[in-house]
Amino acid sequence: MNTFIQQLKFNAEGLIPAVIQDQRSGEVLTLCYMNKEALQKTLEEGKVYLFRRSKNRLMLKGETSGHIQIVKEIFVDCEGNSLLLKVEQKVAGCHAGYFSCYYRRLNKDGTLVTIGKKIF
Amino acid sequence: MNTFIQQLKFNAEGLIPAVIQDQRSGEVLTLCYMNKEALQKTLEEGKVYLFRRSKNRLMLKGETSGHIQIVKEIFVDCEGNSLLLKVEQKVAGCHAGYFSCYYRRLNKDGTLVTIGKKIF
Repeated sequence: MNTFIQQLKFNAEGLIPAVIQDQRSGEVLTLCYMNKEALQKTLEEGKVYLFRRSKNRLMLKGETSGHIQIVKEIFVDCEGNSLLLKVEQKVAGCHAGYFSCYYRRLNKDGTLVTIGKKIF
Repeated sequence: MNTFIQQLKFNAEGLIPAVIQDQRSGEVLTLCYMNKEALQKTLEEGKVYLFRRSKNRLMLKGETSGHIQIVKEIFVDCEGNSLLLKVEQKVAGCHAGYFSCYYRRLNKDGTLVTIGKKIF
């Protein structure tokens, strides 16, 4: 797995973005950032770990809520500078209570309308 | 639309990441970066424009290949710092000839296996 990690291009902050997609529904849940350590723990444990930039620390996605993401498949893009993780989402992916963080859609008039499923 | 753009959080480089998803299949195609101008043009023309960091310039996705992305729906995440665009992909999304840039899957032994559809 170290060979895999060494092939990736981490940005100037040492992070790589990872698109998180619900495997069953195909719904895109969120975009998160991993440093090498977060990616290593994700690979070892099969659960999404991320580097929370606002808190400047490694964390298990869902560590307080229990809404973890079980990793099913990992893909890398053509440039090696982003990842796609297909997961099994427990309960909901967004701290605001929606299944996906992308619960607001842009209307033609420039306003946002909530169309996501509110789970909690 | 300017009100919408003003609500978004662009990073220190003036960019916002946008996950591009094929609307019909649900396949995640790529992750791109937009500055304000790229997003404005995307909204005006209904085709994906991006800021190509390696070339340091605005470009229409598919401007040389003709493999453009017609925007169908735009979503914003809970934090306002990333976008999800559902598109109609013309031909293929990846310059390497695959429908999606995420055409390589990580095996349990750490190697990458190509599972994507080769289109051209």
